[in-house]
Parts: sequence; C-alpha cells; structure tokens
Amino acid sequence: MSALAPGSVIGILGGGQLGRMLAMEAAALGFDVHIYTPEEDSPAARVSARVTVAAYDDAVALAAFARDVAVVTTEFENVPAATAEILIASGAVVHPNPRALALAQDRVAEKQLFASLGIATAPFAVVDTREDLAGALHTIGAPSILKTRRLGYDGKGQARIASLGEADEAFASIGEAPAILEGFCAFEREVSVVAARGIDGSFAAYDLVQNIHQNGILARTIAPAPGAAAIADAANAMTQRLAEALNYVGVITLELFVMPDGALLANEMAPRVHNSGHWTMDACGASQFEQHIRAIAGWPLASTTRLCDAEMQNLIGADADAWQTLSADPNARLHLYGKRDALPGRKMGHVTRLKP
Amino acid sequence: MSALAPGSVIGILGGGQLGRMLAMEAAALGFDVHIYTPEEDSPAARVSARVTVAAYDDAVALAAFARDVAVVTTEFENVPAATAEILIASGAVVHPNPRALALAQDRVAEKQLFASLGIATAPFAVVDTREDLAGALHTIGAPSILKTRRLGYDGKGQARIASLGEADEAFASIGEAPAILEGFCAFEREVSVVAARGIDGSFAAYDLVQNIHQNGILARTIAPAPGAAAIADAANAMTQRLAEALNYVGVITLELFVMPDGALLANEMAPRVHNSGHWTMDACGASQFEQHIRAIAGWPLASTTRLCDAEMQNLIGADADAWQTLSADPNARLHLYGKRDALPGRKMGHVTRLKP
Repeated sequence: MSALAPGSVIGILGGGQLGRMLAMEAAALGFDVHIYTPEEDSPAARVSARVTVAAYDDAVALAAFARDVAVVTTEFENVPAATAEILIASGAVVHPNPRALALAQDRVAEKQLFASLGIATAPFAVVDTREDLAGALHTIGAPSILKTRRLGYDGKGQARIASLGEADEAFASIGEAPAILEGFCAFEREVSVVAARGIDGSFAAYDLVQNIHQNGILARTIAPAPGAAAIADAANAMTQRLAEALNYVGVITLELFVMPDGALLANEMAPRVHNSGHWTMDACGASQFEQHIRAIAGWPLASTTRLCDAEMQNLIGADADAWQTLSADPNARLHLYGKRDALPGRKMGHVTRLKP
Repeated sequence: MSALAPGSVIGILGGGQLGRMLAMEAAALGFDVHIYTPEEDSPAARVSARVTVAAYDDAVALAAFARDVAVVTTEFENVPAATAEILIASGAVVHPNPRALALAQDRVAEKQLFASLGIATAPFAVVDTREDLAGALHTIGAPSILKTRRLGYDGKGQARIASLGEADEAFASIGEAPAILEGFCAFEREVSVVAARGIDGSFAAYDLVQNIHQNGILARTIAPAPGAAAIADAANAMTQRLAEALNYVGVITLELFVMPDGALLANEMAPRVHNSGHWTMDACGASQFEQHIRAIAGWPLASTTRLCDAEMQNLIGADADAWQTLSADPNARLHLYGKRDALPGRKMGHVTRLKP
C-alpha cells in the first residue's frame, strides 16, 4: 500500500476515548474519519465525519463500512474474529492485522508467542477444568493469579489465589471460563513500551514509562520511567521482536514487570494505542494517536522524541468533577472525553503535568 | 457567567479551518460543538458533533441554533450585524460581543477606535466619493492605499495609489465602495500580537511574532519575532487596551507595522483566532484555539509560555501537494484542513517547524 492521500477515509472500530483521540489526530492530518460502534452518541462519533451505529456482527453494516473506508483500525483488541473476516472479505485493509488482534484476545496464545520469541514471562499454565487448575497449582504454586483467557481488562476476570485451598472458589469467581494460571510475580514496578511499526517495517518507540495502578486500573504514568536507561533497550527490543513476528502495523504496547534484579517479564500486549501513552499528546511532537494514524496510512513514522518529563494521571469516575481546579492549574494539560455519565471506574479524562 | 461545564455545547459560526481547529480543541476539553455554516460538508462540521447548514440570515435556523448552544463564537469577523442580533434575541451568549465584531468589519471605525485609545496608525481618511478621495490624497499624499471599509481580507478589496493620477482607476477597481485611504507606511516588518481576555478581565498574550506576506496572504510566521524584547511590551499593552475598551472575551489579534525607528503602528485587529497564532498548536502547552475556548467558556486562561522557537509556513493551494515530503520531515508538524479542492490562494494547511 502506498501512502494514503489526505482526504481519504479512515475507519475506526469503537466509539470510546481512544477512537476519539485517534479521530482528532486523523483529522489534523487531513483525513476524514468513519466510526463504527454499537453505541449511540459515542465520544468518538462526536468528533468524526461519519458514524455507523451497528453491532459488530452486522454483516451488512460492516460490508458498507468496509466499502466506505480506505483502511480500518480499532480502538480495542476484542474485535470478534468474524468482524475482521467480514471486513477483509468486503475488501477492507485492516491494521493491525487480524492475527495480532486474535493473539491479544487470548492470554494463552499471547504468552505462548512471548515464549516462542524468547520474551520472558511469569510461569503460566492453561486451565480449562478444575483438574487443570489443581495440576497447574502443583507446578506453579501459590500465590498465583487465575485469569480468563478472553475479555479481561482493567483487572476484570481475574482472581488471586493465595493458597491451594482457594482454587475452586477462584475458578467459580471467573465463571469457570477457559483460563490461564500465572505464577505471582513479586515485581518491583510495571513499565510499558508504546511503539509503532510502519508499513515499511520501520520501528519507533516512545520513551519507556512507569505505570501505577489502583484497583486494577491505571492511575498514573511517569515519563520517562525512573532508571529507564538500564532497561529501555531490552524492553524496546522485545517490543520490536513482537511487532515483527506479528508483521504488525500501527501502535503496539507491551506491558512489562521489572523484577528486583532488573529482569523484565512481559505481562501483556495491547495491539493499539494505550492509556500509558496519553502523555505523548503533550510531551512529544507527535502523539501516539498521530503515530498510529501515520502507520496505518502508510506514512513515515514521526519522531518519538520526548520534549520534557511528564506525568499522566487518569481521571476516573468522579475525579473529573475537579475540572474547575484542574483547568486552573497552569502546569496541567486537561483532556476530557465527552462521556455523559461519570460512573465509578469509568475513564472520564486524563491530565498530564509537564516538567520542563 | 460561571464556567461552562464539560458536556456543554459550544456554537461556532463558520465551517472553515479556524472553526475546525476551535472545534477540536473544544472537544479535547470535553465540550460538544455545533457548527453553523452555509457550506455543505465543511471542514469544521466533519470534526463536530452537530452542524446546521443554513444561511447567516436564516432567522429560524439561527434561533434554533441559539437554543441549542451555551455560547456562540465565530471563526470570522464578517458576521452580519443582523445575525448577531437574532442570536442574542434568541437568548444566546455571543463572544466576542457584537460591538467588537462590528468594529472589526469597518476599517474606519477600527482606525477611529485605535486613535481614541492612543494607538498609533498610518494617517487615514474616509472616502465615500471621488471628491473625498481627491481631498484625502491632498492631505495624505501618494503613495497610499485605498481599501474598502468592509469585507476585505487577504489583500482583497485594496488598491495601491502610486501617484495622484491613479485615483479614479483605483476607486473604480474597488467598485467605488465606501473606503478608507491610508498613507503608505514604509514599515520595516509586520508583527502581530495574539492574546486572550477572559470573562474575569484577565489577559494573556502569546509571544510577539513576525509575519511575512506574499501576494497579500500570510506566508510565514516567525515565533518569537526577532528583536521582540524591544517592542513586545508596547505591543501587548496596545492589545490589552483595545481588548479592555471592547470589553472583549476570547482571542484577539492585533497586526502592527514596525517602523525603521522602532515605532509601532496598528494595521488591523481580528476579533478571533488568527493565522499568525497557528504556531501555538505545536510550540505552546495550550494553543490559541484552546485559549479561545477557555475564554468564551468562562474558564481560566491557560499559560501562553512558548516552549521553543517555531516557524509556521502556510500551505496555500498546490503547496499542500507536498504532503508526502512534509510528512517525512521529522522537524515539521503538519496540519491539513480537510478541504476538498486545492484552489489557488486557498489555505489548505500549515506546517510548523520547531527549533528546540
């Protein structure tokens, strides 16, 4: 694919804040955006030229969407395989490719890919039955974490197993769904790489960042991660290896645990722009959103140089009620997502504090 | 008016690139945007939640628009007085206020206001008839410039008078419209102040910039203007005096000539965000577009600190065909406006080169 000309239509699956920020950056480069989402009045649709409100299994709507757009991307990894198939059968170019999306939907396949690429992880085992779980606990031991293979995010679909006796209860709490048992990682901290791979195979990572979670949801991202110099090259190399193995196009995120001895263990990948990359909107020339649009449009990747230190804080639920205070802070760059209801746990916006 | 809460609807008159960039910044702060424009498929509408496509004298459409929005602003100064009156009669809050808009539409009223505020200008005289022009030329002399009082922009509606014998031809060339004769200013260069005044009377100017025109259209803006230290305080003070006299709310621009002796002569004001402020998108924390939205929403003004030197270049007509080269320049921040046809003289986008 040659570079998409300005005026081309970029299709985005999903109407949330990631789609919204992608749409705005696409528009800034002269593209029109078509949002496909089941949600009426979505945050992304309100900043886009066109919207299709339809289910992800609506073959007719998907085919029409595919015909309207020059390329399709997504704001979330849980795109049903059938959705991607219909889009491709209708002639759409889909970036990232369906294999990358499918892998990221299945914690087992993801971990197996990491292993095949020599990317270290916590010990893990496949759990389909109570017997599997018992066997896995024998090998991996407790404490450990049981996670559904599919559809987990922000700490959902997970159960911690502190001792062997909690196994059945934990399995029941995730609905006895197909799962993975992961050995508990006594990590020192979590970092992530947000990087992009272009259609020409070029690769560019933003600075390694450190992430702080609260209640299983990202609370803050520190850019750069303290002590990044010692680990960034290794983290970037893992991410590049992963992106190349997937023949990936777009922004990809790799979350890593940093162990007390400095070793890096891959936690999970996200085949998309990521909350831990929001700081790039204010502290880099080109944000992760522009970078993703550039990649999927076949444009050259932009510089990922960090212009100053930054800290991103998520505004979750009622946090966003502080907009008046935040808007008056001269060091705070406020971003609100246009969501109607500040439900508990809902990401309503974020604020980035620059440290020039 | 207290600060508008996120989720409120901001109405913008005009569907061009200034409306588009205002709309995107409004969305980033959590507002919904409603564009009012006579143009189908306008650049601004394609990034906004709602659009009304109707004429500026459509009283029914204007009244409905006024009822839908919490505040109305504009991307252009030539808003018909009747339009503003209908909006206000329908209950809309309009920023900047109609008096400021009306003044900026009339070069004579504008120059008279400058004079009343002690803001120096080139000598000028009102020209309604050939006889007025003859008299004005006697006083002001040639070379001088004859400009229509109304609806001039980007060098349109202007005629240069090199010698007294060219008077009739010049007047004919502007359709013998009501005009102003301005003494020719042998200025060294042109600078502009892009500043904002908040609802609370607070005032914040971006760094003084230098503007280079070609064929009457802005070609480049250099931020900061070379030698700004010697003249910026005076230029900012003039702009603040002007904004206060107009009880202005929003971003206001003052174009000034710098004379060889360093004196500043006001050329014209624009009651809006301005092409010479586009560099703020990439070289400041908050752009002029965010600043304008903050002001009209009753939010605190943002910091106007310049993070690095910058140079903005307009992409006019076919200039935008170079998007592939520009997109590959790691120092160039490319902005395209989504206009369908690259007509000669049409502003298609701009590129800002940062000099960290």
